[in-house]
Amino acid sequence: MLESFAMANIAILGATGNVGRLILEILEERKFPCESIKLLASARSAGSTIISPKGKEYKVEEATPEAFDGIDIVFASAGSETSKALAPEIIKRGGVMIDNSSAFRMDPEVPLVVPEVNAEDIKNHKGIIANPNCSTAPLVLALKPLDEKFKIKRVVVSTYQSVSGAGKAAMDELITASKKYMGNLPNELADLASSSSEIPDQHSYENYVNPIAFNLIPQIDVFMNNDYTKEEMKLINESKKMLHRPDLAITCTAVRVPVLVSHSESINLEFEEDITIKEIKKLWSKTESLEIMDNPSKSEYPMPINVTGRDPVYVGRIRLDESQPNTINFWLVSDNLRIGAALNAVRIGEELIKQEALAS
Amino acid sequence: MLESFAMANIAILGATGNVGRLILEILEERKFPCESIKLLASARSAGSTIISPKGKEYKVEEATPEAFDGIDIVFASAGSETSKALAPEIIKRGGVMIDNSSAFRMDPEVPLVVPEVNAEDIKNHKGIIANPNCSTAPLVLALKPLDEKFKIKRVVVSTYQSVSGAGKAAMDELITASKKYMGNLPNELADLASSSSEIPDQHSYENYVNPIAFNLIPQIDVFMNNDYTKEEMKLINESKKMLHRPDLAITCTAVRVPVLVSHSESINLEFEEDITIKEIKKLWSKTESLEIMDNPSKSEYPMPINVTGRDPVYVGRIRLDESQPNTINFWLVSDNLRIGAALNAVRIGEELIKQEALAS
Repeated sequence: MLESFAMANIAILGATGNVGRLILEILEERKFPCESIKLLASARSAGSTIISPKGKEYKVEEATPEAFDGIDIVFASAGSETSKALAPEIIKRGGVMIDNSSAFRMDPEVPLVVPEVNAEDIKNHKGIIANPNCSTAPLVLALKPLDEKFKIKRVVVSTYQSVSGAGKAAMDELITASKKYMGNLPNELADLASSSSEIPDQHSYENYVNPIAFNLIPQIDVFMNNDYTKEEMKLINESKKMLHRPDLAITCTAVRVPVLVSHSESINLEFEEDITIKEIKKLWSKTESLEIMDNPSKSEYPMPINVTGRDPVYVGRIRLDESQPNTINFWLVSDNLRIGAALNAVRIGEELIKQEALAS
Repeated sequence: MLESFAMANIAILGATGNVGRLILEILEERKFPCESIKLLASARSAGSTIISPKGKEYKVEEATPEAFDGIDIVFASAGSETSKALAPEIIKRGGVMIDNSSAFRMDPEVPLVVPEVNAEDIKNHKGIIANPNCSTAPLVLALKPLDEKFKIKRVVVSTYQSVSGAGKAAMDELITASKKYMGNLPNELADLASSSSEIPDQHSYENYVNPIAFNLIPQIDVFMNNDYTKEEMKLINESKKMLHRPDLAITCTAVRVPVLVSHSESINLEFEEDITIKEIKKLWSKTESLEIMDNPSKSEYPMPINVTGRDPVYVGRIRLDESQPNTINFWLVSDNLRIGAALNAVRIGEELIKQEALAS
């Protein structure tokens, strides 16, 4: 269906958003094999200019169907409705859409991929490959090697999710609330904050219903019929799909916290087989894109402030749950804009190119 | 051992701290049957004047052994070392110490009490009654009626604890960071913040090691040999003691969040017997000092911002955990300075007086 695209023509759809900009940055960082990069956005943003971190200037074009002529890979990060509307246009022009929205994630015809976890699913794509939810990607990355070795019996997750997951409005609220303090923030955070724009699939209503500064909101996205939020069910269902464990016992409570960037998770994990902390740390120390940061005697553990802007998923506070056999507690932090979104999308693109090259 | 003290002579030890001040306020609020109230603190604070919310003026005296002559009940909130040093002095003068520190909580000779849960333990006191940790009190209050009816099999807790639990230094840090925003805070929060002072048993090192503004710290108190923090082990061990369930399977991850007041907890709860959400809500609706705030269709659930300054423990997000039978998830928020400290101490005092009156 596709030609081999060792040097691909790329488009970023939703190029003016947080994730879109970060995709451009990461494509440059990782020297992605691009023949060309086209930045696309809504008519409102078309005509503006974006200068990449490496100094290259791009004119933003309107995301019309014709804009996808000759494009091999589209990184889509402009929300579910836009993805649904443009996917057929991209596919009929021979392109592959790597989609950050939730539109196609649970579609059985669409691979949902974290390359380190289930790269093999990419080969079944029919023009769309979905990027998981920003809390789910780091979770499955940590669970996969343990599931392979000890078979996971049950997972209980409580999340601590930053406002950057709720888009520009929520970030602005927290930032405005703390404006005078911004000068003291690490530069990296300040930069991210000042460049904040729309993130797809987000829920700007959140910050209008409840203030997030100095508060916690135990609701992310809308409520479903079972009284879980959509965010909680995304984490549950997407984990089952990516781990190829439709039977996996997993539950979740998702909470918004007054942090700008990086999502954290407190995870309780039960195994079918006998485990030791030593074996688990050994497996994780060999896991790609995962770093152990766990030194209680020096108060070392992952926190949003020391993880933001970094690529890996960080795990710490790894210890036996003494309340039942073969169970552990651990703490996970990852940059939700990178591993949870832009970085994972680019990695899917790299894997796609590798697989196409091998197949051709 | 004690005379009946229907009108008691009271002392507040650590009267200039957050909890000490709130005890004075709550004694007034609840019209506690006091003959007299004496405010005691370290030599450093002695001589200062405190005006109660009702306008009564108190001179702070130094907490010498002799200061406890003629005192029936001492509300102690000045840290473990002070409690250990002064307990014998209080007891030998015929007084009862209701202690907010962790010094005696796990002493088998000392009742550890949330009156709504185990008031009956008070009668075994030998001059000291301990007040539980600020995350544990609301937890056992919610668990007790469910344990009686359905027998709890296992509890998995992840906490979201405010900085007021870490004392003046941590509150100051978060406040300074957000100073310019304070004008927009609800008055109640601003008042609490500006009156902040030492809280006993707290860990001012926390904020020097790691900043808390826009961050999460997965460590409260020091690490133990099993890689759990002392805070986590307090919650585990104190819950077992108060529920009279030494066998209870319970585990915990405790996390500091950038919230000023009120602690929140995400709780996964498994039962031995068959349950329904309806039965659980019915039990809780009849539970003293507990309020259900759970209306997903209206985005109603407890949050620090709507719970701070209120007496009850609030529970919401109550739903079946679909990953295994007879298990629920819920979300709990309570004012850590009230139910977790000052209010619970005063309630113990009220119960003590009631029991002494009945016994005399």
